[in-house]
Amino acid sequence: MSLRLTILGCHSATPRVNAFPTSQYLEINDRHFIIDCGEGTQRQMRKYKVGFSRINHIFISHLHGDHFYGLVGLLSTFGILNREKELHVFGPKGIKEATEMLLRISQSHANFELIFHELSSKKSELIFEDEKVFVHTIPLNHRVYTNGYLFKEKEKPKKLHIKNIENYPEIGKADYLNIKAGKDIVLESGEIIFNDELTIASEPPKSFAYCSDTCFLPTIIPIIKNADLLYHEATFLSDKEDLAEKTMHSTAAQAATIAKEANVKKLVLGHYSGRYDDIQLFKNEAEIIFKNTLLAEPGIIFEAY
Amino acid sequence: MSLRLTILGCHSATPRVNAFPTSQYLEINDRHFIIDCGEGTQRQMRKYKVGFSRINHIFISHLHGDHFYGLVGLLSTFGILNREKELHVFGPKGIKEATEMLLRISQSHANFELIFHELSSKKSELIFEDEKVFVHTIPLNHRVYTNGYLFKEKEKPKKLHIKNIENYPEIGKADYLNIKAGKDIVLESGEIIFNDELTIASEPPKSFAYCSDTCFLPTIIPIIKNADLLYHEATFLSDKEDLAEKTMHSTAAQAATIAKEANVKKLVLGHYSGRYDDIQLFKNEAEIIFKNTLLAEPGIIFEAY
Repeated sequence: MSLRLTILGCHSATPRVNAFPTSQYLEINDRHFIIDCGEGTQRQMRKYKVGFSRINHIFISHLHGDHFYGLVGLLSTFGILNREKELHVFGPKGIKEATEMLLRISQSHANFELIFHELSSKKSELIFEDEKVFVHTIPLNHRVYTNGYLFKEKEKPKKLHIKNIENYPEIGKADYLNIKAGKDIVLESGEIIFNDELTIASEPPKSFAYCSDTCFLPTIIPIIKNADLLYHEATFLSDKEDLAEKTMHSTAAQAATIAKEANVKKLVLGHYSGRYDDIQLFKNEAEIIFKNTLLAEPGIIFEAY
Repeated sequence: MSLRLTILGCHSATPRVNAFPTSQYLEINDRHFIIDCGEGTQRQMRKYKVGFSRINHIFISHLHGDHFYGLVGLLSTFGILNREKELHVFGPKGIKEATEMLLRISQSHANFELIFHELSSKKSELIFEDEKVFVHTIPLNHRVYTNGYLFKEKEKPKKLHIKNIENYPEIGKADYLNIKAGKDIVLESGEIIFNDELTIASEPPKSFAYCSDTCFLPTIIPIIKNADLLYHEATFLSDKEDLAEKTMHSTAAQAATIAKEANVKKLVLGHYSGRYDDIQLFKNEAEIIFKNTLLAEPGIIFEAY
């Protein structure tokens, strides 16, 4: 398993008992990310046993309270836990000033460096890369400046096909790095042993696209094309398409249309408006358009193999 | 019942599953107040069925996150609920700028007027008064500027003792207002009927003193003297008195000493440090000094009759 998404909260801002605003915990290729951070996120992290010390990067889509008001409490808690590792926060321009001001007024002392990466571009851009993962923004269209995020594993190194390699005593351990890097081997005889024979193909890289909040926006389709997992907001059902348009949210059918056009493998819906008592209705509506539709609920885990 | 306190959260900032930071809901003489507002307060209000529309006044003791980070989410929710009544927030200087900045950056639209009453005095002062209730500050001593609050009913009007009044046919309904106001009645004969005979004494006014966070501070005793209910923080037990002193918190024994010296009727402890698994230990320690000690827990209600 190289991609695992835990829903910490998935409701819209409408107040209800046992509704938790948006936050997700993503494990991808041994990286651990928090995506959005509504009020109460730190409590949900504890409830679902997310290791605080594993988190080094937090991605905030936009500065509406139901995606953002839990950030400062989480950062304070990192301070109380005596965190020393630096922490990176990605989010819209303005997030640094607001967060630092709140931490200052609360006199929250921290021994760790808090590094903000403020976003303002309206084009998709690479905002994070290490040896295992890329993260690109997915520009969305909501009432305030908003980005989704595309998390993608890097190509994994090929594995050695030891049994096949042993057929050629001439090939030694000194060649292994070259083989893993995809090179063919030329024997002394001049015979070429093609790399495919000496290696086992690695799993194709997995990807997760996070899209919340946004109106129906087909321009994101090329960015999220073929993603293994797509989370797309579905605040309303089609009966409220006018309200979705007015508030710049999506319906379940619109989310499913995006999923279908982008040819993703699985669609996860969330950000349900409080006006619907039965979230199953979102699944029913979306499945007509995109069969592999699932529903976010707090504590539910989605995996891509 | 004229005084009823619902504990919404009562734990210190240390992160734990199912620990809720400080917030209380006070009903006193038909007034409805929120006292402190840690992260998740609005969820606890919904859980314990606190009517959002009843709240017109919020009192914040100090700007540490575990007493304050839930305020902006609650205010946003008032906006979502289309509140129109004005809302008053009392708290330390700085609360207005921080809160307004967060609401602005989140583009939280509200139709109601939000009125901040910023406090900076180090002396006890009357900060709220209407026809039913007084609220005074209780200057506390913590790592940042902090006030407790003393909530006190006003003297209630006397009730007519109709049976006794009927012994004097001369006394008519026109006299009732004077009788309620405490006046004696002079009959035509010159006989004086003393007010005590014509009225039933009203209940003595009830009071609630809220004291969190603070080090051991005997200067508050005259302010909270004879309160019906005292909430006093007890972050530590006496085994950590040195840590209490260092962090400017109190032990259970110190809270009990304040309760005893102030001759209050009931003491409620809270703000327990996460290092103690069993909060009963706080009660055990305090009861030795002050018998009528109770423990705050989320959802628990304390009443004064």
